[in-house]
Amino acid sequence: MKNIQHPTLLVNEKICRSNISQMARKAHKNGAELRPHFKTHQSAEIGEWVREAGIKGITVSSLRMAQAFAEAGWTDITVAFPVNLLEIKLINKLASHIQLRLFINSPATARALQEQLQHPLRFYVEIDTGQQRSGLAAHDLQRMDAILQEASKSSLLRFHGFYSHPGHTYATQTQEEVNKIYQEVEALLLPLKDRYLPQFPDLVLAVGDTPGCSRVEDLTAFDELSPGNFVFFDMQQYHKGACQLEDIALALACPVVDVYPERNTAIIYGGAVHFSKDFYRQSDGSQSFGQMILFDENGWSGVVEEAYLQGLSQEHGVLKGPAKIINKLQVGQLLAFLPAHSCLTADLVRKYYNLNNQNTFSSFSHL
Amino acid sequence: MKNIQHPTLLVNEKICRSNISQMARKAHKNGAELRPHFKTHQSAEIGEWVREAGIKGITVSSLRMAQAFAEAGWTDITVAFPVNLLEIKLINKLASHIQLRLFINSPATARALQEQLQHPLRFYVEIDTGQQRSGLAAHDLQRMDAILQEASKSSLLRFHGFYSHPGHTYATQTQEEVNKIYQEVEALLLPLKDRYLPQFPDLVLAVGDTPGCSRVEDLTAFDELSPGNFVFFDMQQYHKGACQLEDIALALACPVVDVYPERNTAIIYGGAVHFSKDFYRQSDGSQSFGQMILFDENGWSGVVEEAYLQGLSQEHGVLKGPAKIINKLQVGQLLAFLPAHSCLTADLVRKYYNLNNQNTFSSFSHL
Repeated sequence: MKNIQHPTLLVNEKICRSNISQMARKAHKNGAELRPHFKTHQSAEIGEWVREAGIKGITVSSLRMAQAFAEAGWTDITVAFPVNLLEIKLINKLASHIQLRLFINSPATARALQEQLQHPLRFYVEIDTGQQRSGLAAHDLQRMDAILQEASKSSLLRFHGFYSHPGHTYATQTQEEVNKIYQEVEALLLPLKDRYLPQFPDLVLAVGDTPGCSRVEDLTAFDELSPGNFVFFDMQQYHKGACQLEDIALALACPVVDVYPERNTAIIYGGAVHFSKDFYRQSDGSQSFGQMILFDENGWSGVVEEAYLQGLSQEHGVLKGPAKIINKLQVGQLLAFLPAHSCLTADLVRKYYNLNNQNTFSSFSHL
Repeated sequence: MKNIQHPTLLVNEKICRSNISQMARKAHKNGAELRPHFKTHQSAEIGEWVREAGIKGITVSSLRMAQAFAEAGWTDITVAFPVNLLEIKLINKLASHIQLRLFINSPATARALQEQLQHPLRFYVEIDTGQQRSGLAAHDLQRMDAILQEASKSSLLRFHGFYSHPGHTYATQTQEEVNKIYQEVEALLLPLKDRYLPQFPDLVLAVGDTPGCSRVEDLTAFDELSPGNFVFFDMQQYHKGACQLEDIALALACPVVDVYPERNTAIIYGGAVHFSKDFYRQSDGSQSFGQMILFDENGWSGVVEEAYLQGLSQEHGVLKGPAKIINKLQVGQLLAFLPAHSCLTADLVRKYYNLNNQNTFSSFSHL
């Protein structure tokens, strides 16, 4: 820790490995395959921690990220993002040597792949179960049938099942709300499985959001789980009830550069280009970009109550806190913060400092 | 343009150079030195466009960014950020071969520098004129005097003047509101100048926010101007009245990956890791992360009315638009968007495609 001079991402390997094995156990208990989403960490090293928990297949959010993890030795990769036809060359390159799974959400995409694909791959049809982002409405059987019919013209395209990201769980607070969303997801996906099972006897149902996979006990309806954020968790997940504070495996260390006792604030070197502009609402409704924690070279031991990042500009963070905390701060001191959204913070900072062995390693960010 | 396969940052060199020369003319007319803030583009190449407009001194937001631009040949650099004492080695290294200017906002920082500095540099005291981020209250003469007294113990520290970033102009809409803020800034800074001028006859007043420097006509009270965003502008600046749409020099090209006519949406490959999560409010109050534009290989020719990015997740962008636009979109098509906040978008994407000469060049992002 002695060499930290500027905003630095700290990862607690022990907590991270514990989050991974806990999710692996949960998937196993539910008879589902865990195919974790690697967009959160984008790191070959953290990928190895996942591999050591027995995981074989993974999920990513872009073809270039798939390529990076293929180079890191992963051979079974889902790109959980609608096919980008402009990258057809990369699709063919990847499909030539790994088991690649894509999302085909339109007959036009199925047609283009059917015409240009050179190697076999599996595909999911993505179903929108309420998030209203990508995916077909569950009742849009016409589009579904058109996709499957178009895909059936190619012997290289194999239908694998339905995938849904119930991202609207991110707007929930209570256990009841998350359970209710998952009941609706089941109610939408199970009839689809029944409908297509005679034609595709191996088809699977896949879901993957961290609030759902963490909080919902009974996930037996699903064959595959692809949460991502759970490896680190963050303050957004904590405020949704998806984790405890002690499950958060990522923090950003930031130098204090100014102290203003008269305003109960301090300025840290750590801004939107480190944390991202994502935020969460604290219990009193106020907006926070990160929570100050007590920490030393061994890790962190709890939060500093009421001390949080009230605002961020490009490199500045405004720390708001009680007088007893702010008055003691010194310029040149190092503080640490649990981020609002660990996926975006990790993507921005792109280098990890492993608190458990003092090693530094990089991510593939921005692929 | 034929080779664009994934989210790609387009810069229109002509517009960018025109924005630069317009601001240089305005500074000249007001008798002020333009020391533009390079945090916006973080690019040696765009720096050359600035240099060709006759600019000698520049502003950056971190010591590592100062180092990168020093390596690119800049020899007069202000780090417009409170001194990070943990980087004292870098400060000494930079001060040994360039004219370095820092912000000293506390007696403790002045004392540490006085003890550890090995080469001469100039410093500003930052004044908070209402943004409530960093900087001393203008009435805090006690702290100001303590800083100057501490600094006077070192022959290497030379007081250069007062710097203020009236960032609260970012919350304004009308010309009257911006003018009013600048009247207040003058009313706070001019008495300080009068007070310290007898002791420091060369001291200057410096300000630097794009809304203020763009909209306020009479800037003769100030000796230096350091806006940054104006080289590109963006939709936030447009909605504040700081620029016209045709002044925006930056756009993000993104492939269409899904089209949902039944929801009047399309999904683009372009999300929070490309645009950032910063947004602006449209005239009707709705939140937008980017504005769709008409474009071809020569540049853009106007906006597509009512077609905007309604939501972003890590790699997904949700384009909302009128049926006549959405219904015509095809998967695999390339669209382009004016970003909400160009500084953060440029920081994230880190590579520019110059529309005027088809060259690609990188930035120093995240230094």
